[in-house]
Amino acid sequence: MRVHSREVEKTVYRKLAERGVELEDIADIVLEMQLPYHPHLEFDTCMESVKAVLSKRELQHAILVGIELDVLAEQNALSEPLLSILREDEGLFGCDETLAIGSVYGYGSIALTTFGFLDKQKIGIIRKLDNKSYGKVNTFLDDLVAAIASSASSRIAHKQRDLEEKLLDARPDGEGQTAVQEEDKAGEFDPLLREAGENAAS
Amino acid sequence: MRVHSREVEKTVYRKLAERGVELEDIADIVLEMQLPYHPHLEFDTCMESVKAVLSKRELQHAILVGIELDVLAEQNALSEPLLSILREDEGLFGCDETLAIGSVYGYGSIALTTFGFLDKQKIGIIRKLDNKSYGKVNTFLDDLVAAIASSASSRIAHKQRDLEEKLLDARPDGEGQTAVQEEDKAGEFDPLLREAGENAAS
Amino acid sequence: MRVHSREVEKTVYRKLAERGVELEDIADIVLEMQLPYHPHLEFDTCMESVKAVLSKRELQHAILVGIELDVLAEQNALSEPLLSILREDEGLFGCDETLAIGSVYGYGSIALTTFGFLDKQKIGIIRKLDNKSYGKVNTFLDDLVAAIASSASSRIAHKQRDLEEKLLDARPDGEGQTAVQEEDKAGEFDPLLREAGENAAS
Amino acid sequence: MRVHSREVEKTVYRKLAERGVELEDIADIVLEMQLPYHPHLEFDTCMESVKAVLSKRELQHAILVGIELDVLAEQNALSEPLLSILREDEGLFGCDETLAIGSVYGYGSIALTTFGFLDKQKIGIIRKLDNKSYGKVNTFLDDLVAAIASSASSRIAHKQRDLEEKLLDARPDGEGQTAVQEEDKAGEFDPLLREAGENAAS
Repeated sequence: MRVHSREVEKTVYRKLAERGVELEDIADIVLEMQLPYHPHLEFDTCMESVKAVLSKRELQHAILVGIELDVLAEQNALSEPLLSILREDEGLFGCDETLAIGSVYGYGSIALTTFGFLDKQKIGIIRKLDNKSYGKVNTFLDDLVAAIASSASSRIAHKQRDLEEKLLDARPDGEGQTAVQEEDKAGEFDPLLREAGENAAS
Repeated sequence: MRVHSREVEKTVYRKLAERGVELEDIADIVLEMQLPYHPHLEFDTCMESVKAVLSKRELQHAILVGIELDVLAEQNALSEPLLSILREDEGLFGCDETLAIGSVYGYGSIALTTFGFLDKQKIGIIRKLDNKSYGKVNTFLDDLVAAIASSASSRIAHKQRDLEEKLLDARPDGEGQTAVQEEDKAGEFDPLLREAGENAAS
Repeated sequence: MRVHSREVEKTVYRKLAERGVELEDIADIVLEMQLPYHPHLEFDTCMESVKAVLSKRELQHAILVGIELDVLAEQNALSEPLLSILREDEGLFGCDETLAIGSVYGYGSIALTTFGFLDKQKIGIIRKLDNKSYGKVNTFLDDLVAAIASSASSRIAHKQRDLEEKLLDARPDGEGQTAVQEEDKAGEFDPLLREAGENAAS
Repeated sequence: MRVHSREVEKTVYRKLAERGVELEDIADIVLEMQLPYHPHLEFDTCMESVKAVLSKRELQHAILVGIELDVLAEQNALSEPLLSILREDEGLFGCDETLAIGSVYGYGSIALTTFGFLDKQKIGIIRKLDNKSYGKVNTFLDDLVAAIASSASSRIAHKQRDLEEKLLDARPDGEGQTAVQEEDKAGEFDPLLREAGENAAS
């Protein structure tokens, strides 16, 4: 019998929580990544974007697979030498990034470069997960969190543009506005962006 | 001044037409690729899916870049040795696939494997474009058409599943249905699928 | 303690054999894929190319991870709903392709399109693995075999070109040769190609 | 008539120089990226690695295409709206990253994450290229330089490991060494690494 998507999504939320990742932690990263480009961006918009990307099958499946491997490595329930490779988070092992990247692609090249940046800089919860002192194996999880955060960041960048253009279209003198002027007024767009956000998760 | 997305989309439609690619040709490929999985799939649903993927920035930009290079090669307006490489559609040149694939990733791994298949099998309009007797350079265009068709195919596969699950949820005995039974009833879903399709382009 | 690469490679060979995949089966696919382009290509050259791509870390790691997941699914040792998804080889599950594709990219866009083709057409051993009547879970393995075969195919295409150019350079009238003439003489290159092959695995 | 690889490679070197990119500038980035992991890494090893990755077809072709588009944009020789998009280096335009990334994949996931990092941080020559005050269009070039640098960095990481393992194998008590001890002795490996480097470009 086929597994229902609702079942998959519910498990994804539960597993992230069990492994110590709160959606708020991820939204924090998104806010930090996008604030330089959208100075009036609010936390709730980031949170909404995190939930929206978590509704995608490709990312849900990657999370299930990655967390499963982390947990099995923690329980010494994998065969060697894979077990040692995962427990050590061996530097040249790339399947964790590969799996994560597969789900990032859906949000374009901004998502991909943000992922690379987060993978190197390990901001916020990603750094905590990478810290072995927690006594856990998070070889896959830190990359998965980076994937969620970078996808959500890219989604905001694209949605923000869509919104700016819609507002531009609504002005009588719309076409004559320059990029600089639009930038200055970015703050005005936020209430609308939040509104758009509520409908964008589906 | 920043270019408006509407301008980009309009140009994409015009350029495809100028290069001899009708959206109907692409929808034909989509229908051929997805019919084995969804026997009641209709042409209009495929057409709608083609338009939906054409609304994505990543793909629009790839189309603008690829067609530009084809046209410039045709006019001998590129420097050597790039000019010869494009005019010969040199077998080991991979930038055409790379550019096209970048926009395919957004629709998941089904899109990617469908792209690989179309790139080898060259179905319908893709074969015509690959045929040098037209006296044109279509080094990038055939891959771009394969990218549109494979993205639209994958989008249908995912939407069809969403729809099946929604119907399943609506039944009183929904959860007890087996995969085989769902398959048998796939035809019943089509009217709803078309309806869903009309709202999915945004 | 860090795992030695030699240990990883040895395990990869052993696991493939345990799962019923002989390197000869993969070389058969490579031969079938490349014969149309290099009519004098020999089986031994394909076999050498399979071994060469199997020496790459990225692919080795993907094989270890993929086979581990297949085996654990067979033993019902994964949590739900991942277990059901893998046991059913659920059509919209894409982590198997994603993992495999990550290792294919190293051999360029020819490798990627060949992978897509093999994933759809399921030639030779790939079809056998896909056949559920074997009572095994090969959700990841069939894609991994397609990854090995497509990487090895692309490697041959690139090496063949290198060789042709070296031979062309060695001729007094080298630069005047056309592509057609080179194609006709492709058979003459094979002994040299095999020789080159022996040194290329490292 | 088919273009000879030698011709392609020569043009790549010439075009990079014409656009103000010295290979030394790229080697500097590689050194900065890899020094934290290999404290005794020398500039010459980085330079050799840059040349090695520049010998790959996939990357060479990407460089030819990208620089061609930059130059044509500078000369206003592209059609609209592509011309404006390239001249503005429009933030949501991703074909530059896509083209560059296609050639990065060949060096594994380390290369990909390094690329993402460089794309955001814009170290050294990449920052200079990104600086519009030069009066040039470098929309593609900065990403191409990041692609060369990240590929060369990843290649060093992999070769360094190969070398460490060879040295480990040569010791009578080799298998008992821990990762920490290897790290401490990394400096000793450098002369050999350089030697290996000289043979690795082909």
